[in-house]
Amino acid sequence: MKQNETLDDLQNGYYIIQANDGFKFGVDAVLLADFAKCRAKRAMDLCTGTGIVPILIAAKTEIQRIDAVEIQPDIADMASRSVSYNGLEERIHIKNADLKQASAIYGKGSFDMLTVNPPYMKSGSGLLNSGDSRTLSRHEISCTLDDVIRVSSELLMPQGKFFMVHRPSRLADIFCTMRKYSIEPKKMRLVAPREGKEMNLVLIYGLKNGNPELKVMPPLYIYGSDGNYSKEIDDIYGR
Amino acid sequence: MKQNETLDDLQNGYYIIQANDGFKFGVDAVLLADFAKCRAKRAMDLCTGTGIVPILIAAKTEIQRIDAVEIQPDIADMASRSVSYNGLEERIHIKNADLKQASAIYGKGSFDMLTVNPPYMKSGSGLLNSGDSRTLSRHEISCTLDDVIRVSSELLMPQGKFFMVHRPSRLADIFCTMRKYSIEPKKMRLVAPREGKEMNLVLIYGLKNGNPELKVMPPLYIYGSDGNYSKEIDDIYGR
Repeated sequence: MKQNETLDDLQNGYYIIQANDGFKFGVDAVLLADFAKCRAKRAMDLCTGTGIVPILIAAKTEIQRIDAVEIQPDIADMASRSVSYNGLEERIHIKNADLKQASAIYGKGSFDMLTVNPPYMKSGSGLLNSGDSRTLSRHEISCTLDDVIRVSSELLMPQGKFFMVHRPSRLADIFCTMRKYSIEPKKMRLVAPREGKEMNLVLIYGLKNGNPELKVMPPLYIYGSDGNYSKEIDDIYGR
Repeated sequence: MKQNETLDDLQNGYYIIQANDGFKFGVDAVLLADFAKCRAKRAMDLCTGTGIVPILIAAKTEIQRIDAVEIQPDIADMASRSVSYNGLEERIHIKNADLKQASAIYGKGSFDMLTVNPPYMKSGSGLLNSGDSRTLSRHEISCTLDDVIRVSSELLMPQGKFFMVHRPSRLADIFCTMRKYSIEPKKMRLVAPREGKEMNLVLIYGLKNGNPELKVMPPLYIYGSDGNYSKEIDDIYGR
């Protein structure tokens, strides 16, 4: 642990190191890891940040090999230390790299499952402070949606599974870019803070070289009408 | 009224003629007409069938001129007789034509609003009996989704409003085809029979030459937990 870092209990036997003044994992990472539960031989997590998604997936699945890529050296180092702290060095392998180099590093078609919680906002939208690690995590500065999906498609083998969490406002971009790179949207789940509110997250499952036919699942609500977490969120957090 | 036809009361002051053995309007047409409520100078309804959508829109809005196109001569004739029966000849103009001829007939950019409840199923999926008028209404035999959206884009003026009801399973096709023809998806509402069920209809609002940014509204449920129509459906039906 370094100065200015905290160790947070994930309530599933694992812990995560996060910087006090950095980007903290949110409900989106937790929902993505749960949505992505599946059998796979070798998984990849792009834009892994503190490594929250691979650590949660290690807890929820039997997947024995999860690679993960993070562009920011200090964040990748923090993720590696979380992996060691949890004794997950055999299963999770963090690499500090630009995802645009990922196919060169790992080889095309090397993964049968891939997760990504990319920056949601187009570069140029909102206030930017490009020196800030939180800004890099939220805005398409170091990679665009097109980069993320192109690289995902390269890394996945045919019939490989792609899981992403994003904003519903980008849904047309997302579907058109997935089609462009031969990842067919197969399942979608929208998320809203509570019933009756506009949807503000979307979970997407796509299949490399899949056939067109999308299932739209019932929406997921974070809070119940009583203001507490919904039962489903409690279940996902394992409480 | 011809033999084998019935006159159904729409409960809004208007009536509709339908063939006993033909395609009857469903909740999708009713939802589309309600979703499409807006101000417009000149509206178009493609794949109008019995004319249910323009008649409902005439009841719900102040739009003074609604053109509507139907490819099947006997169905177009039935729609015209419904329009006359309701005394709506000044506002609704039914034409028996192939929608692929619509831009030639009406001129490009002639409409500021367009609705369409197209055939949902790809030709080749499901059992087909191409001589049956119900088959033509449900399957992409006389027109594909690409035809529908291409023609809609031609008919709409810049910033013209496009409203469609379709199946969520086709959502990737829908968004990619809308983008292809410069109709940007702006708002989406998913519909399920009841809470907790998979979504089985989708209402889409697009803007000709619009900017990317999609709003996903809370879902609409047809039935409440008591098995009766939900309050929202009762309101839409005007009961």
